[in-house]
Amino acid sequence: MSTSTTPSTPTDLDLHGAFHVYDTTLRDGMQQEGLNPTVADKLTIARHLDGLGVGFIEGGWPGANPKDTAFFRRAVAELDLKHARLVAFGATRKAGAVAADDPQVAGLRESGAGVVTLVAKSHLGHVEKALRTTPAENLAMIRDTVAHLRAEGQQVFLDAEHFFDGYRLDRAYALEVLRTAYDAGAEVAALCDTNGGMLPGWVADVVHDVIESAGVRVGIHCHNDTGLAVANTLAAVEAGATHVQGCINGYGERTGNADLVNVVANLELKLDRQVLPPGLLREATRIAHAVAEVTNVPPSARQPYVGTSAFAHKAGLHASAIKVDPDLYQHMDPGDVGNDMRLLVSDMAGRASIELKGRELGFDLSDAPDVVTRVTARVKEMEAHGYTFEAADASFELLLIEEAEGARPSYFDVESWRVITETLTHARPGEEAVSEATVKLRAEDVRYVVTGEGNGPVNALDQALRSAIVQAYPEIGRFELIDFKVRILDQGHGTDAITRVLIETSDGASSWVTVGVGANVIEASWEALVDSITYGLLRHRQP
Amino acid sequence: MSTSTTPSTPTDLDLHGAFHVYDTTLRDGMQQEGLNPTVADKLTIARHLDGLGVGFIEGGWPGANPKDTAFFRRAVAELDLKHARLVAFGATRKAGAVAADDPQVAGLRESGAGVVTLVAKSHLGHVEKALRTTPAENLAMIRDTVAHLRAEGQQVFLDAEHFFDGYRLDRAYALEVLRTAYDAGAEVAALCDTNGGMLPGWVADVVHDVIESAGVRVGIHCHNDTGLAVANTLAAVEAGATHVQGCINGYGERTGNADLVNVVANLELKLDRQVLPPGLLREATRIAHAVAEVTNVPPSARQPYVGTSAFAHKAGLHASAIKVDPDLYQHMDPGDVGNDMRLLVSDMAGRASIELKGRELGFDLSDAPDVVTRVTARVKEMEAHGYTFEAADASFELLLIEEAEGARPSYFDVESWRVITETLTHARPGEEAVSEATVKLRAEDVRYVVTGEGNGPVNALDQALRSAIVQAYPEIGRFELIDFKVRILDQGHGTDAITRVLIETSDGASSWVTVGVGANVIEASWEALVDSITYGLLRHRQP
Repeated sequence: MSTSTTPSTPTDLDLHGAFHVYDTTLRDGMQQEGLNPTVADKLTIARHLDGLGVGFIEGGWPGANPKDTAFFRRAVAELDLKHARLVAFGATRKAGAVAADDPQVAGLRESGAGVVTLVAKSHLGHVEKALRTTPAENLAMIRDTVAHLRAEGQQVFLDAEHFFDGYRLDRAYALEVLRTAYDAGAEVAALCDTNGGMLPGWVADVVHDVIESAGVRVGIHCHNDTGLAVANTLAAVEAGATHVQGCINGYGERTGNADLVNVVANLELKLDRQVLPPGLLREATRIAHAVAEVTNVPPSARQPYVGTSAFAHKAGLHASAIKVDPDLYQHMDPGDVGNDMRLLVSDMAGRASIELKGRELGFDLSDAPDVVTRVTARVKEMEAHGYTFEAADASFELLLIEEAEGARPSYFDVESWRVITETLTHARPGEEAVSEATVKLRAEDVRYVVTGEGNGPVNALDQALRSAIVQAYPEIGRFELIDFKVRILDQGHGTDAITRVLIETSDGASSWVTVGVGANVIEASWEALVDSITYGLLRHRQP
Repeated sequence: MSTSTTPSTPTDLDLHGAFHVYDTTLRDGMQQEGLNPTVADKLTIARHLDGLGVGFIEGGWPGANPKDTAFFRRAVAELDLKHARLVAFGATRKAGAVAADDPQVAGLRESGAGVVTLVAKSHLGHVEKALRTTPAENLAMIRDTVAHLRAEGQQVFLDAEHFFDGYRLDRAYALEVLRTAYDAGAEVAALCDTNGGMLPGWVADVVHDVIESAGVRVGIHCHNDTGLAVANTLAAVEAGATHVQGCINGYGERTGNADLVNVVANLELKLDRQVLPPGLLREATRIAHAVAEVTNVPPSARQPYVGTSAFAHKAGLHASAIKVDPDLYQHMDPGDVGNDMRLLVSDMAGRASIELKGRELGFDLSDAPDVVTRVTARVKEMEAHGYTFEAADASFELLLIEEAEGARPSYFDVESWRVITETLTHARPGEEAVSEATVKLRAEDVRYVVTGEGNGPVNALDQALRSAIVQAYPEIGRFELIDFKVRILDQGHGTDAITRVLIETSDGASSWVTVGVGANVIEASWEALVDSITYGLLRHRQP
């Protein structure tokens, strides 16, 4: 617990060890405008990042706000990381303080994370104007904090904030900052282009000089303000950096951080450097989209490597040649990042994927070309109206059965429903409204008229629907609605835009997703609810 | 009209003339999935591009489809271009045909465009498998077509399709293609990374070699499949290319083309090369957004240089220093591209950013530390409950006024509201439900009980609220709800999760965003609706 403990010698440091793929989605990525994840969201994202095989997951700044503190407490207890190490981000001790007694440093020390990344100033203007201390005290703050955390058994990395601008202003001081951290036991000096204004050639020159002159292990942290975050990161690696920082989907403040999947895909597929555990890059598309579901930021179709349009070809001029030799028209095999080639106009692509999807769900459609034709046409038509079946496998399967067997599975017949939401008289702002739903339906030849209450209209409808059906089908007592997502399509038309609702339901053992679409959000939710119960019953009542 | 006319000698070619900024938004950009502009849209975009000062506007392929043919007819007659020259894109003559007699070539010749860009194969695999002709005939097709169009008085550029892949396969043939076009009178050989798989270092090496070995003026045309389109374009320029192709907003097939504004801003602001008429780069943000309005593709907030988040700052850490010296935190003056610095209010923000945000909204809080304390505390508390004020400036301003002046602006007093959503009896799947809302409130000492109908519950509430208030405040007749976003927070708890609603309202001249949060989606929407009307009235009724 004392800063006088001798720091570990460099011999036990991973100074020349494996290449570091360092993800900062949960810290720097969440600085993006509009992102405000819950602790549960952050835990889910961490699991996805681990599934991608990144080496380090920077989880946030324990102590800086209650959410990040809670995240570390739960992450240490609940996450069972297979590939990644958890990293706490924080600052050096306050000017004039003692590292061991600094409460912010205590937050890092007690976070339970095996690695701490300390952000430090390497730019004299920032030392003076933002930190309001002297260059010498800044060095002491770095030295003391690194040494203290090392002595307490944590691995320490340095984020040299505003490094490139600082280097231009005073090269000697910028290098001294890195060397100070290194001598105190920091394993990596990540050079941060905090304002994001660099070009690749400039980054390469500085990284070369730092490695030569300061003799430290160099990492790189780039922002995309010039549209060059990925290029700058690659330039640093080609100049000798062995630690890359970035975010999934390029999330981050302003224009975002370097898109980590782009960086990794370029390193592995273009420069033949294996930086993730073998095979895991093939999970990239799935994981990038899964994280976008959690953040609820619609993923860009044009995203390199993982976008839904990244390997889409407008037919016409190229169509016949693509059939002869797809490699003439794509820079790599889309499967290497878990993506797929798509032909946008060709009916063949649609049919083939419907057939494939059917097989995945246990339907052999190879001898039923007419069913494939009908399903393809209905999917195209419904997608044009706002449906999506990519995530809603259960709704797709119901549609497939309807076309293959001539009728949709049906366990109940809804007569009508109604839901009322109202406030108390003279409700104060913030006082919750209550919802009450009435559903009339027939199941197994019995007519039910039931009412459900809820803290929202969909919740009330769900309660009413269940309380009717459970009398006929007791097994739905086990079904639980575990996720509910609303997306407004065709934005710019206000409250009369089209709404898409995705509902995930679990029976304890597994879960399924259904979709509903409509101008009315309640109607769309109802459609997805009915599908979810129908699909669950189908699954449970099948032999 | 004869191909035997001697091609103009290089002396009248602009081989070493001014740098070319060449826009292909209207041709390659429109290959983007989902883009399908009308002729009028294309004319509007062309005017915007001319306003940005690009040197060349590639308008499409006259003769390939009726829309492009109509575009050229109208463009020649109606556009009064100040800076740009109009370019027709097309192919070389058919194998075995005569250029002067080829109908496709006639379309180019008769387009009225002063410049023609001919796409040609420089990759032996494509010559063989896509073009299905011999290497020698491909060269003849290039030679004849260039010479013919030159003789007819048009300027000719060559787009060497799949050049980089072709160069790897057979360098000598790829160079021969360029040289053939040059000798026949083409002014620029644009090297196309058609499949988008290149890295900057590779591009630089090839451009160097082409300039040295083929002695032609080199242009560059990059796609963003590796996330490096801008970097690859800059690398080509640094290696000697003097003609850059790209699209506004990075539109284009798959992952898009190089974002032309990024390329130009980097050239002008980072590499000190003036490539647009002086002062016009300051129009970039306005024009990028105006074009997005025409294409109806919501612009990315994170777009480098021109995105609404490109100069937005969120972290509390930075805010105090931003007050001291903004240049410490931005890589350039946002005004240089017509953008602005913005400060975001969030739970990561401290007192300093609240004070700065207040100043931005016209409140001087430097002498009111207690107000800053109260606002900071309330923002943190409300954000912990799911509110976000980053986007919801109007709700933040109402909160600020409440704390600064002791009371929230209030123009009406809501007694109660109720909304009913129901289906018809025996409604079929897909048949829309209807919503009906009743609102009771007092405004200007009159009590109103009004009912509104809508295709959704929020729409119905909006209608009812307006029809009551408009009687007291006629100006709200001009307010229109233009965007409505729903985000389910704390997912994993099904339909009883917390819901956040953001509403954007316009008065025709400007727009504002408000936020509502609650377990009940209707309640949350109502809160945001009331804020939106209150804020609009505040703004319109202030002296």
